[in-house]
Amino acid sequence: MTDPVNRRVLLTARPDGIPAAKHFAIDEVAVPEPDDGQVLVRNHWLSVEPAMRGWVSLESNYSAPVPLGAVMRSFASGRVVSSRHPDFQPGDYVTGMLGWQDYAVASPETLRRIDETDLPLSTSLGVLGLNGVTAYFGLREAGRPRPGDTVVVSTAAGAVGSCVGQIARNMGCRTVGIAGGPAKTGLCRNEFGYDAAIDYKAGHDLDTAIATACPDGVDVYFDNIAGPISDAVMRHLAVGARVVICGTVSVTTWTPPPLGPRVERHLLAKRATMQGFLATDWTDRFGEARSALAAWIREGKLTYKEDILDGLEQAPGAIGGLYRGDNLGKRLIRLVDEQQEGPRAE
Amino acid sequence: MTDPVNRRVLLTARPDGIPAAKHFAIDEVAVPEPDDGQVLVRNHWLSVEPAMRGWVSLESNYSAPVPLGAVMRSFASGRVVSSRHPDFQPGDYVTGMLGWQDYAVASPETLRRIDETDLPLSTSLGVLGLNGVTAYFGLREAGRPRPGDTVVVSTAAGAVGSCVGQIARNMGCRTVGIAGGPAKTGLCRNEFGYDAAIDYKAGHDLDTAIATACPDGVDVYFDNIAGPISDAVMRHLAVGARVVICGTVSVTTWTPPPLGPRVERHLLAKRATMQGFLATDWTDRFGEARSALAAWIREGKLTYKEDILDGLEQAPGAIGGLYRGDNLGKRLIRLVDEQQEGPRAE
Repeated sequence: MTDPVNRRVLLTARPDGIPAAKHFAIDEVAVPEPDDGQVLVRNHWLSVEPAMRGWVSLESNYSAPVPLGAVMRSFASGRVVSSRHPDFQPGDYVTGMLGWQDYAVASPETLRRIDETDLPLSTSLGVLGLNGVTAYFGLREAGRPRPGDTVVVSTAAGAVGSCVGQIARNMGCRTVGIAGGPAKTGLCRNEFGYDAAIDYKAGHDLDTAIATACPDGVDVYFDNIAGPISDAVMRHLAVGARVVICGTVSVTTWTPPPLGPRVERHLLAKRATMQGFLATDWTDRFGEARSALAAWIREGKLTYKEDILDGLEQAPGAIGGLYRGDNLGKRLIRLVDEQQEGPRAE
Repeated sequence: MTDPVNRRVLLTARPDGIPAAKHFAIDEVAVPEPDDGQVLVRNHWLSVEPAMRGWVSLESNYSAPVPLGAVMRSFASGRVVSSRHPDFQPGDYVTGMLGWQDYAVASPETLRRIDETDLPLSTSLGVLGLNGVTAYFGLREAGRPRPGDTVVVSTAAGAVGSCVGQIARNMGCRTVGIAGGPAKTGLCRNEFGYDAAIDYKAGHDLDTAIATACPDGVDVYFDNIAGPISDAVMRHLAVGARVVICGTVSVTTWTPPPLGPRVERHLLAKRATMQGFLATDWTDRFGEARSALAAWIREGKLTYKEDILDGLEQAPGAIGGLYRGDNLGKRLIRLVDEQQEGPRAE
């Protein structure tokens, strides 16, 4: 009953910087058969994320690089097609590191069964996936916001940033989003509830804009970008500020590291902290984050945007756009249109 | 019975960078009389410290700048000459922000009576003064060392650094000191008990030297300098490393901030923290630090070096040498030779 063919996106060249379509190729192979104890999953949604630059890089990083010739590493969500494990049945919705491909064979310990069947399956890759738990733990554990704090977020309309801004607002903070262009700052104000939004592309003096939006200084800066915009935020830290380094999307290469203004004096004069944060250090507590995030969604206190590209063939070129800021919301590749499959919750 | 004259070092010009003799003048005025509730102190020892660059600067900083024409701000220790406050008697040893001058009138709330009369009075300005409490709280609270951690210290033979290294060793850490020249690295190994010492002036490749001294990476970096040496240490952080920013002595001006390699990728890949630390945020707990430090001194587990200049006229030119690394140990100005005064403890 399964398709005869599994299309796979393979990494075929090692990018020097941001991965582009030319670094990948699509092949077609037979759909794999699960071994005893494994399941076969039909992927419905593939994730596209800035971290993929790191996953394919040989630079010192936090995970082993994807080998050349291998299926591109990716979170994906889908439905169990056949199972040789007693805990999974055909029809179960699951998510995991299933790769950029139509079908994946997986062992149960690498899968999560999706319990939030009242919410769209795609949320398992965004606001209830790594983006959401990154926002949740990065803000709470590294940012340590207190009610009344001013929290500034870069890529404020993005998959992680929009979630950070809304969690901070839900925690009683004043929130200021930095994003590029009126469409994104409009989203910040009207969809994500930021108290102020700064358009870094508008040609304003960024220092003046930050000072105006943050009259008492910046208590928490949740940074997804690094670079000149973040340099400006650093000049406005409040005493005791916490800077969460969650991504460096504005920097195209770290070999060698680009130069920027030294931060030591800001940190010393303001007794501030900069902390690198990776959600994967918090996997033991992901369930706690998902429960809180799902509850906020159901209460109408947490919303999200998705930027959907249709078809596996869109994947290879989809990373670059994240670095250019092309997307409005979480970028996803849709392989199966669930509208045609009927309702999910049973 | 007091001297008829109070010599004072006045700030007469605003330095652009490191304060030098030309920015100060010495005048002579009558010894002041204490008002009701005040005491008159004869200073025996004046402190000289890198932070004085900040104290005279108009740049954004953590204290209001010393006004032009005012006595140079400084910690000093001495003996009460006359008292119009019931809690202080002539002969009491005290320390406080008494300034670069022979005599100072002070209110009791700005003074600390020195209880450690079995230890030399000069320790109240170094290992039992701001240097010691900076090392104690900076290492423990911002560095958070665990037994077995590798702790790297810059200006490792200096007044703060030597104390950091020894506290870390007392806490069960492996300690690596970075200092300039064989005299200082010799002190590191032979006096301050570092497990390894790196001479950054020896022409070795610093990355190789750090990698050799820290085969498991750097868990804590206690940084007093900023600049290229610290940049090299950042390349060797272990996962979860803590970088304590305690000083920036290698940077001659912050207007504008100098450029350096961006740190965000190191922080992210290693989930590391950089934190600015000022001991003055911990004044409520200074007593705890002094007790622990004094106990270690008495047990022979904490030693210190002093670099003593004789006479008030040495003070104006004494700051620059700290930035050139001229001094071996805590730099002090001696105004009164206590050997000629007999024993202190009564």
